[in-house]
Amino acid sequence: MVKDLREIYENYELYLNKEICIQGWIRNHRKQKEFGFIDFNDGTYFKSIQLFYDNKLEDFDSISKLHIGSAISAYGVLVQSPNKNQDFEIKISKIKLEGDCPLDYPIQPKRHTREFLREVAYLRPRTNLFNAIFKIRSIASYAIHKYFQDRGYVYVQTPLITANDGEGAGEMFKITTFDLDNIPRDEDGKIEYNKDFFGRKVGLTVTGQLEGETFAHAYKKIYTFGPTFRAENSNTKTHAAEFWMIEPEICFCDLNGLMDIEEDMLKYIVSYVIENARCELEFLDNFVEKGLIDKLNTLINSKFAKVTHKEAIDILKSSNEKFEFTPEYGCDIAREHEKYLTEKHFKKPVFITDWPKDIKAFYMKMNDDNETVAAVDLLVPSSGELMGGSQREENYEKLIGRMNELNMKIEDFDWYLNLRKFGGCTHSGFGMGFERLLIYLTGVDNIRDVIPYPRTPKSCEF
Amino acid sequence: MVKDLREIYENYELYLNKEICIQGWIRNHRKQKEFGFIDFNDGTYFKSIQLFYDNKLEDFDSISKLHIGSAISAYGVLVQSPNKNQDFEIKISKIKLEGDCPLDYPIQPKRHTREFLREVAYLRPRTNLFNAIFKIRSIASYAIHKYFQDRGYVYVQTPLITANDGEGAGEMFKITTFDLDNIPRDEDGKIEYNKDFFGRKVGLTVTGQLEGETFAHAYKKIYTFGPTFRAENSNTKTHAAEFWMIEPEICFCDLNGLMDIEEDMLKYIVSYVIENARCELEFLDNFVEKGLIDKLNTLINSKFAKVTHKEAIDILKSSNEKFEFTPEYGCDIAREHEKYLTEKHFKKPVFITDWPKDIKAFYMKMNDDNETVAAVDLLVPSSGELMGGSQREENYEKLIGRMNELNMKIEDFDWYLNLRKFGGCTHSGFGMGFERLLIYLTGVDNIRDVIPYPRTPKSCEF
Repeated sequence: MVKDLREIYENYELYLNKEICIQGWIRNHRKQKEFGFIDFNDGTYFKSIQLFYDNKLEDFDSISKLHIGSAISAYGVLVQSPNKNQDFEIKISKIKLEGDCPLDYPIQPKRHTREFLREVAYLRPRTNLFNAIFKIRSIASYAIHKYFQDRGYVYVQTPLITANDGEGAGEMFKITTFDLDNIPRDEDGKIEYNKDFFGRKVGLTVTGQLEGETFAHAYKKIYTFGPTFRAENSNTKTHAAEFWMIEPEICFCDLNGLMDIEEDMLKYIVSYVIENARCELEFLDNFVEKGLIDKLNTLINSKFAKVTHKEAIDILKSSNEKFEFTPEYGCDIAREHEKYLTEKHFKKPVFITDWPKDIKAFYMKMNDDNETVAAVDLLVPSSGELMGGSQREENYEKLIGRMNELNMKIEDFDWYLNLRKFGGCTHSGFGMGFERLLIYLTGVDNIRDVIPYPRTPKSCEF
Repeated sequence: MVKDLREIYENYELYLNKEICIQGWIRNHRKQKEFGFIDFNDGTYFKSIQLFYDNKLEDFDSISKLHIGSAISAYGVLVQSPNKNQDFEIKISKIKLEGDCPLDYPIQPKRHTREFLREVAYLRPRTNLFNAIFKIRSIASYAIHKYFQDRGYVYVQTPLITANDGEGAGEMFKITTFDLDNIPRDEDGKIEYNKDFFGRKVGLTVTGQLEGETFAHAYKKIYTFGPTFRAENSNTKTHAAEFWMIEPEICFCDLNGLMDIEEDMLKYIVSYVIENARCELEFLDNFVEKGLIDKLNTLINSKFAKVTHKEAIDILKSSNEKFEFTPEYGCDIAREHEKYLTEKHFKKPVFITDWPKDIKAFYMKMNDDNETVAAVDLLVPSSGELMGGSQREENYEKLIGRMNELNMKIEDFDWYLNLRKFGGCTHSGFGMGFERLLIYLTGVDNIRDVIPYPRTPKSCEF
């Protein structure tokens, strides 16, 4: 019976001194005259296992010629290892070659640059670094689902193709089935969108929030977790055209309640990843971000700080720090300000609340001062902004008033506005960019390295 | 402390004869001269709870004027109910109106047609029917993640924007940031795709399988679960332009191993939904598909049948059934044939294997007969095809040969082909349309009713 490496590592007493078969790939191969060692991994566990063979085997010659990268079925006995770097190894009785691998195989047992590995993105999960990153991506995804499902939230798959432009925030990708060489036009030369697939102009969504709010008004607590898009032409380490977002929305919940949920959720996810990706985190702590595990443990054990935007500017202004951008009331907070607040002043995650209305979205609840809105950003040490949320404006007239100020097309949002007429209530929600979270969890600083196949300006490979 | 209805239903002994507060919406309101009853639901539990109030309350008049659909905070004591249709109810001491609802609110406590409810899709999860459907959608999503994560599969979020056309199967949506009124062209009038956002022609993916295979060759067992698109202009009950798919891919797994996984997974999901959506299924069994729960239990307890495509045609030909389409070797199996096989002949789910190569995709493993491929479709009673999978062609030369026969552009698939050179191995995978599964689980027959905001030809609302 074939076993996964994971089963062997997790219950090795069961298999010790027994015949087993494992199927996977050769990560490294060191041969000597009379014996040889194969680093074997089947991808189900972060650590490899050592296969030991010697020249008493009939197939010694053919085994010793096996190439790195090859797929094999290995048969042998699991034994205690004499080597103190490992607990056990497999004494081989037979190896069957399942699929060969040429000598010019790009993934060799040495350090490759991340830039090179991006070019062979389809092979990079076979390296320790990317194996760890994408395993953590999977584990963190599950932690998010588990957190919300265990607490009675309903998962809503909001649409990706949309005729709204969401927050009016991001540049959108257009979607069409028109032949671009032959777009139908009316007598005046105007494009006949009524002849396109959906009969109107549509694009890829920048947020599922508005649809999420509609479901929150039925289930009280919902979350989305799906892809989101920005056609923003920025080639930075933190921007991708396609990324995943989590957008919970909760009825009968104000800004304070929202912050409690954000803090509780983040601590849960981090704890879950620490518990379920121990080997992966140790590797990343060693080779990517020294102190990563300490950073994560500190987060779990801290009580997040809370300041208003005004208080945050006060702190920044009264600091002796030399900033490139002068902190200003009424303005956004720069990356360097975030770093100062989280890493020097508070030394822990910080909620910044009550932002100037002019730099925030139309749907955020106006505070009594008529100048600020009940918005909250969560900043964390080393990664900056991780979540952005707000209490939503539930007052129909105030919401319409704000949309008119911003020259929005009210008629496109009648259903959204109706939520305020048909049993509306205090409600709040936030968005967390999943890749932002992964950058925080893995210590890797480039968004291209936490997405299986990243999409960025001028790049859409594989 | 505010409680969710779910907590009260699940632990009602804890709250019996205690003061509680709940926040949610009025589903129905029956008033008499001296007392009144409110059907209350907060969306966290399928069943509503009855709020009872009488004219001893100071606010009796204002409470008795509360409208259906309004959001309220209700305070009172949880008491045993004298009514034998319910176990308990809340004797109200105070109700605070959180958000009013007008008398012309579209969702009234009566039967609405599904067609009407599609027009107010943002309100339909407030009805029993859609509340049940979208709750099951959430629960089934989680069951899928739980099944694979518990078994060590890695969740891979494959890209949605792609330059490949996948199986070459479906019509694709184009994505662009060009101003359609002003598309850049070179001197010969050719569109300069190098000036588009990604510098090339791109579209919305029809499958994540090819990228999934690359990750399976690193982690052995992976699954995808995400949105997929078809720009197919078919207005039927089973087609949507945007839908979700699950695509597991497993290395060192042949067609028989794949069928075992499909059967095991489906039984797990169905069991999980039966256990976690009991009230919802009972409602659907009563009002949508009589016998639904029996159907699901039968599936769990049956051993799925297995026949080859040829054997299936033999069975169909030798039946006395009058088919509209004559069953033919080498041809696809029609809906009526599927019905006969699953509902009359086998009376349970059936795997059909070894399909004629010409009606299946290029990547499927050629059988020794050179006529059929190692493909498998799973048919289930009442819903027909639920999953389609295959062993993949892992032989580099055979795969290239087949692609050449089909005039495919080999150079676009070099990375996919390389999987066969760099430690390739026997591997298999399948795809399950998530909405197909939901149609099976809920008994609802129109795909528009199992997607929160369906996208179909000429329809992209909300």
